Amino acid sequence: MFAPRRIQHCRACGASTAYRVPADDNRERAICGTCGEIHYENPINVVGTVPVWGDQVLLCRRAIEPRHGLWTLPAGFMELGETTAEGALRETDEEAGARVELEGLFTMLNVVRAGQVHLFYRARMLDTRLDPGPETLEAQLFRENEIPWDQIAFRTVRQTLEHYFADRRSGAFGVHVGDVA
Amino acid sequence: MFAPRRIQHCRACGASTAYRVPADDNRERAICGTCGEIHYENPINVVGTVPVWGDQVLLCRRAIEPRHGLWTLPAGFMELGETTAEGALRETDEEAGARVELEGLFTMLNVVRAGQVHLFYRARMLDTRLDPGPETLEAQLFRENEIPWDQIAFRTVRQTLEHYFADRRSGAFGVHVGDVA
Ligand SMILES: [Zn+2]
Ligand SMILES: [Zn+2]
Repeated sequence: MFAPRRIQHCRACGASTAYRVPADDNRERAICGTCGEIHYENPINVVGTVPVWGDQVLLCRRAIEPRHGLWTLPAGFMELGETTAEGALRETDEEAGARVELEGLFTMLNVVRAGQVHLFYRARMLDTRLDPGPETLEAQLFRENEIPWDQIAFRTVRQTLEHYFADRRSGAFGVHVGDVA
Repeated sequence: MFAPRRIQHCRACGASTAYRVPADDNRERAICGTCGEIHYENPINVVGTVPVWGDQVLLCRRAIEPRHGLWTLPAGFMELGETTAEGALRETDEEAGARVELEGLFTMLNVVRAGQVHLFYRARMLDTRLDPGPETLEAQLFRENEIPWDQIAFRTVRQTLEHYFADRRSGAFGVHVGDVA
């Protein structure tokens, strides 16, 4: 996952940068000592889905670090040139090879320590064909009582799954906003 | 607002970068020709509020470019170290000097061309004292029929205001997800 990297050199001219507060600002930014370029660093979005087939949810077992071998919902970094929904669909295709139809934003979870916001959409699977990509060891459908709760890769995935099953029992799906410490 | 900047030099060592597709990737990234550092560029979040006092909504007239002199909801770039809600509160304080209590996420609007996602929360103003910051010429409360629709700075602000008044008439506030072309 992402951790803010300290910027040592200017992206415009390559000279050394130093962290200080610009004149009209109140936070330290990496500023170029030669050309004056100011480098802003901001949280980034992770976008994914809760793919559902009947009473089952699709999870992917990670083939990459961090959390190699643990289970996750399909999700990854949002890219320039796409919407949050397009990114969620792309990750669902890349990681699981699943064909889904989005059914609405479901969770927005802040992970401040990682500088991330995780956004999950509910998604209806159109069939059960799967074709996991290189980042996934295997993709598998789970009923609620089969979920490997002690092998979930990320807390935002755990919270999203918990919200999903709770809302399904209540009969109404909301949008859940929260923070992960 | 933000436009993706092409990265010319490596943030780690200052050497020249070139855009090409890394071995395990499918998109062009700025890669350092000397140390191999890969530079990812991702959409960033703009966070703000719809501050409400009775039947009035608070708008701020911009003292900065772009859209100098036009009206906006208080909003700005989400920073590292804060949640979306904390960022929305910070911007409401910085731009309007308004004290508010958040009432829930209201809109999430993708602005793909700008590489941004705009997130607005509904917010209840605790009093009518205002103290606009240097980015704001003036802050003012408007009833629906007083909104300066032809002088709104950004389309995401216009859409958020339209959703707000429509939901208020219907008696129920939802979470609205959409895209701005
Ligand atoms: Zn420079
Ligand atoms: Zn380098």
